[in-house]
Amino acid sequence: MGPAYTTAYRYYNDDINTKEIEKSVFDTILTGTARTYPDDDTYVTDSAASATALSSGIKSYNGAIAVDTDKKPVKTMLELAKEKDMLTALVVTSQINHATPASFTAHNESRRNYDQIANDYIDNKINGKLPVDLMFGGGTDYFIRKDRNLINEFVDNNYQYIDKLDKINTITQIPAIGLFDNIGLPYAIDSTKNHLEMMTKKALNLIDKQSDNGFFMMIEGSQIDWCGHNNDITCAMAEMHDFANSIKIAKKYVDNNPDTILVVTADHSTGGLTVGANHEYKWDAQVVKDFKVSARKLSRKLFKNDKLALEWDKYSSTPLTDKEYQSLKVAKVVDEANLFIAVKHIINTRSYTGWTTNGHTAMDVQVFSYGKGAEHFTGNLNNTDIAKQLIKFIKN
Amino acid sequence: MGPAYTTAYRYYNDDINTKEIEKSVFDTILTGTARTYPDDDTYVTDSAASATALSSGIKSYNGAIAVDTDKKPVKTMLELAKEKDMLTALVVTSQINHATPASFTAHNESRRNYDQIANDYIDNKINGKLPVDLMFGGGTDYFIRKDRNLINEFVDNNYQYIDKLDKINTITQIPAIGLFDNIGLPYAIDSTKNHLEMMTKKALNLIDKQSDNGFFMMIEGSQIDWCGHNNDITCAMAEMHDFANSIKIAKKYVDNNPDTILVVTADHSTGGLTVGANHEYKWDAQVVKDFKVSARKLSRKLFKNDKLALEWDKYSSTPLTDKEYQSLKVAKVVDEANLFIAVKHIINTRSYTGWTTNGHTAMDVQVFSYGKGAEHFTGNLNNTDIAKQLIKFIKN
Repeated sequence: MGPAYTTAYRYYNDDINTKEIEKSVFDTILTGTARTYPDDDTYVTDSAASATALSSGIKSYNGAIAVDTDKKPVKTMLELAKEKDMLTALVVTSQINHATPASFTAHNESRRNYDQIANDYIDNKINGKLPVDLMFGGGTDYFIRKDRNLINEFVDNNYQYIDKLDKINTITQIPAIGLFDNIGLPYAIDSTKNHLEMMTKKALNLIDKQSDNGFFMMIEGSQIDWCGHNNDITCAMAEMHDFANSIKIAKKYVDNNPDTILVVTADHSTGGLTVGANHEYKWDAQVVKDFKVSARKLSRKLFKNDKLALEWDKYSSTPLTDKEYQSLKVAKVVDEANLFIAVKHIINTRSYTGWTTNGHTAMDVQVFSYGKGAEHFTGNLNNTDIAKQLIKFIKN
Repeated sequence: MGPAYTTAYRYYNDDINTKEIEKSVFDTILTGTARTYPDDDTYVTDSAASATALSSGIKSYNGAIAVDTDKKPVKTMLELAKEKDMLTALVVTSQINHATPASFTAHNESRRNYDQIANDYIDNKINGKLPVDLMFGGGTDYFIRKDRNLINEFVDNNYQYIDKLDKINTITQIPAIGLFDNIGLPYAIDSTKNHLEMMTKKALNLIDKQSDNGFFMMIEGSQIDWCGHNNDITCAMAEMHDFANSIKIAKKYVDNNPDTILVVTADHSTGGLTVGANHEYKWDAQVVKDFKVSARKLSRKLFKNDKLALEWDKYSSTPLTDKEYQSLKVAKVVDEANLFIAVKHIINTRSYTGWTTNGHTAMDVQVFSYGKGAEHFTGNLNNTDIAKQLIKFIKN
């Protein structure tokens, strides 16, 4: 979520019935920016290296899950918080053992070792206790396996377990684990639920009752990045909205608990998103708002349906031009992947949204902070500086 | 100069002989970010609207030179400074009547009315005095015209005038005007001189001796944007270097004069630059450093010379691959414009540099500040907030 994402989100979120361009929640708490380069000569980080930097204060190689360049484990702030008998929590929309949450909880030489990483959520004991008290996200495929059923082990350790987001309010205690999908949760735009907002609200409610000794919580709007990898702006903006609502809840928590610090940042930016493209001085937020589903879902629907134009009109309030219709027809003959590309081309062209890669870029990210000690997160920081300061707070 | 430019510059400027990635001067003084949208529904500003916002605190339409949406003149901070009998100065690498400096000095419904705008540099009297005491930049084409010779009028008003940058040290007094080219100055990379650095040093030396009543100076690294419009990364990085050196001089001035405030920002970002592109997790700064001239100059040289590969080797330390050679050969047959595109394609592909437009984008820009009152330029600001605060300083 580099600065192009928060810029785009402000205009996407703008109330067009007012002359004013409303600030987003991000605008109200920006305090600095951060350098994200990993410990090699590429300058472009992946999620594992940057999450390791953000969890431990140590730069590592792309792919590293809380290990240094010698592949030795590095202590994370979640582990430190647990050592101090604080409550610990992870709230994500990816699988709960994906690179970012994993880099706070597990240690592995490769982010791809998903099963080993999931095992660490039980095995990485801190003073004899499990590392994370509260977990919301996806990932049953990795936690309920033939070789090992980690959920049973959590239950044996007195964790309450649920697998339906609708039933999140049946959770009455910490420790608890809620895994709401096989891998990641659905895109926010393709769902009726604001997943991250719901999970954040519940997690903070639960924490609030039991956090006499303090707490550390890591919340990730995981799929902003996934939509970015797809170069899908409608998908990305809906994820940003869910994330913004989650931040609003966290901000309110800080207002009610002024001894709390909220820090928001990104591990990197994705897709080379630019707000404006193709030589026009314009970005058309209305086009983005016009689409009711992700480009992925739209292409799937179009691929399965013979009446292309009619199907399109179910999900977009602006009908296809002849040229657009032809481009989809030609792409559909090849395969669904080509149709996906053609659909995105229409959305990006109509809205003047630019992308330069399916991967990440080196762009500095923003740092937002709110609450007690927010003044430590100003200026241009190294991403490791953010971790070092938070670790100081946990230690003292 | 959006955040992609300062990110890229840090890595371009990195000393590869040290393990550490050195901070750039920008990194040492970042304090916030700014929203740049103009007063219409495009979200993407041009230089005139944003310079008007930065000079007056008022948002206007794209093309506006210090006039509001009703095309009525708005008071600029340079005019306010002059009313207060402060010294005023403009230092730019574009023509001195280009959109940015013009929006501090002149009033016009269109940035394209270059001659009318130049006339304002004499005619826009403040309390009977000319608006700007010291000017360095380009633009003799607009100031020495058949219908009016403004330089003669400056001389009649006791301005010292020079037209050679090499002779800048012959200027011994304010008022003075130095116009060093017909329109803009040459690109820094195609010149042996660091134009902006030289002009900044001289301007601050002159000001220092005569500024008993305070001063306002606007310095612009004008051609960072021009290289961005060309999607030419080697050109842009050399301009960034000249600008960074100019900021270092200004910072030193503030160190020696702690009652001074230095504020650095951008009017907008250009080109949709991304640091990393084409699916690789990498940006290759070394490739950018390998080129000794701008892509524009390189294509001109290649177009005029029959021995493509030999000519290429004069300006790049990495020889052409067969595929690259063929792409240049094919483009050269069409025309120089096509060759220019082909040359840039090679540089951008080799270095993993992305671009999405020849125009501007809506991306928030960074705000850097240093010296007395720097704490007023923190958080996410509207670009007009920057002007309003500086105007407060001038008024009080």
